[in-house]
Amino acid sequence: MKIGLIGLGKMGLNLALNMQAHEQVAVGLDLKSANLAAARQHGLATATDLDDLLAQLPAPKIVWVMVPAGKATTAVIQQLTAKLSAGDIVIDGGNSYYQDSIQHAKQLAEHQIHFLDVGTSGGQAGARQDGNFMIGGDKATFKQVEPLFKAIAAKDGYLYTGPAGSGHFLKMVHNGIEYGMMAAIGEGFDVLQNSPYHYDNAAVAKVWNNGSVIRSWLMELAENAFDADGNLDQIKGTMHSSGEGRWTLDTALDQHVATPVIAMALMERYRSLSDDTFTGKVVAALRNQFGGHAVDHE
Amino acid sequence: MKIGLIGLGKMGLNLALNMQAHEQVAVGLDLKSANLAAARQHGLATATDLDDLLAQLPAPKIVWVMVPAGKATTAVIQQLTAKLSAGDIVIDGGNSYYQDSIQHAKQLAEHQIHFLDVGTSGGQAGARQDGNFMIGGDKATFKQVEPLFKAIAAKDGYLYTGPAGSGHFLKMVHNGIEYGMMAAIGEGFDVLQNSPYHYDNAAVAKVWNNGSVIRSWLMELAENAFDADGNLDQIKGTMHSSGEGRWTLDTALDQHVATPVIAMALMERYRSLSDDTFTGKVVAALRNQFGGHAVDHE
Repeated sequence: MKIGLIGLGKMGLNLALNMQAHEQVAVGLDLKSANLAAARQHGLATATDLDDLLAQLPAPKIVWVMVPAGKATTAVIQQLTAKLSAGDIVIDGGNSYYQDSIQHAKQLAEHQIHFLDVGTSGGQAGARQDGNFMIGGDKATFKQVEPLFKAIAAKDGYLYTGPAGSGHFLKMVHNGIEYGMMAAIGEGFDVLQNSPYHYDNAAVAKVWNNGSVIRSWLMELAENAFDADGNLDQIKGTMHSSGEGRWTLDTALDQHVATPVIAMALMERYRSLSDDTFTGKVVAALRNQFGGHAVDHE
Repeated sequence: MKIGLIGLGKMGLNLALNMQAHEQVAVGLDLKSANLAAARQHGLATATDLDDLLAQLPAPKIVWVMVPAGKATTAVIQQLTAKLSAGDIVIDGGNSYYQDSIQHAKQLAEHQIHFLDVGTSGGQAGARQDGNFMIGGDKATFKQVEPLFKAIAAKDGYLYTGPAGSGHFLKMVHNGIEYGMMAAIGEGFDVLQNSPYHYDNAAVAKVWNNGSVIRSWLMELAENAFDADGNLDQIKGTMHSSGEGRWTLDTALDQHVATPVIAMALMERYRSLSDDTFTGKVVAALRNQFGGHAVDHE
């Protein structure tokens, strides 16, 4: 299968190499010439612009979009809407908000262009090999592209999930779960780090990865991290996020479903981004007001 | 190595079989004659009472206690303190609170009896094969018993963790992490179950287990559960617990370490055990008092 791949960043380049390793052809396009050059060094075909990319593809043209979610993805899909023809297929493999994907599907459908919203998991390593894909859209379109997913996914590592939006919805929830799992792992190691004992974090993560109930890929990543820096002295505990945890919580609130653990994991991330909070100032001021309790000063 | 094993319940019997399969000999003892009979049916040696058990062991005698944490474990260790001699070894493989284990170690040390507190993970399957053991106590005692752990553990599946209490402390935190991970998985599937899409839970768990970031043994167990009962119609969402999550939170509070995700996971379990709450009655009454908002009646 020969497809266009827009976005040769960390995920896109690895996906292209994964395809190349499995007898699929990805013609790459990226705004950054350095990314294009890197792709060519790996023996990948590239295009100079969108017209050039589309000219290199057989009909029906299939274009995999792998650019940052939000404005960038919407802009690329806008361009593709103008340039593709009836029967062509757009795949959004990014972490788009599922409501955006529903809109993109509608917009493309007005031009009889098909759309698949594909949640991609497994990190960079998974993009490169044995990837994980949650695929929403028309079932017929999925069937048309299935050989591509089969080629680049882990065994049993792709799933057709239903109508447009369902792939990114599932990936959103996957990431919500990931927030909670990661926070639980982080908090557990924090309790160990403050314990009366002297645990070797790398050794703990390792033993937990060999037969324990909490063995998991995330714990393997923790083992790697502690192997490199036993007490993580080299990094700060600021936890950034790119939207999916927030969207999972938004969705749970819309559903009136209680997800306190995922909510707390998200709040913990937000808290980590400030050295101080206004909440703290207010509570300290109130304790001082009613009880004369000491406050700390700036 | 020939040891005594007190407690032939689900975990104990499987451990004994694991030992038997790896050229170790466990002589079993249990208060329930049915458990003793089951052990004998598996070809295991058993004892009629504690004196009989100890008479069957070479010196130094090693006794693995695998009975419910708390009173039962303390009572057995009390008996062993009276009957064992200097140089003998008691192993507590249950989920004892680490402070209890510190006390047990002290009590036994007064009689020069050695003690290892061993957190055992991996569930019944792990007890039966490729187990996971976190081992606190004197290092020399650990070294003496290490061949036994090596025989029954997964590769790299046992760890000497430091002085008495550190094995059960680590297992406690392991279970605290487990609470958070399980709650995150549960909440994620709750959002899916209430979504506008129709996900096949078993298929979702399966795809997540093949290449995704959240692949884990717990997700494999979820896959098994959904395979058997796709929407878990046959079970209620009441979540019991046996102490380790509570102890993890208690410990975090003692340390002044914030573990909101583990706290919420524990609160969620408690909440699940009541059909209604007094919190709810109070809030409903207050909304009615200040705003005339409707209340539901019993």
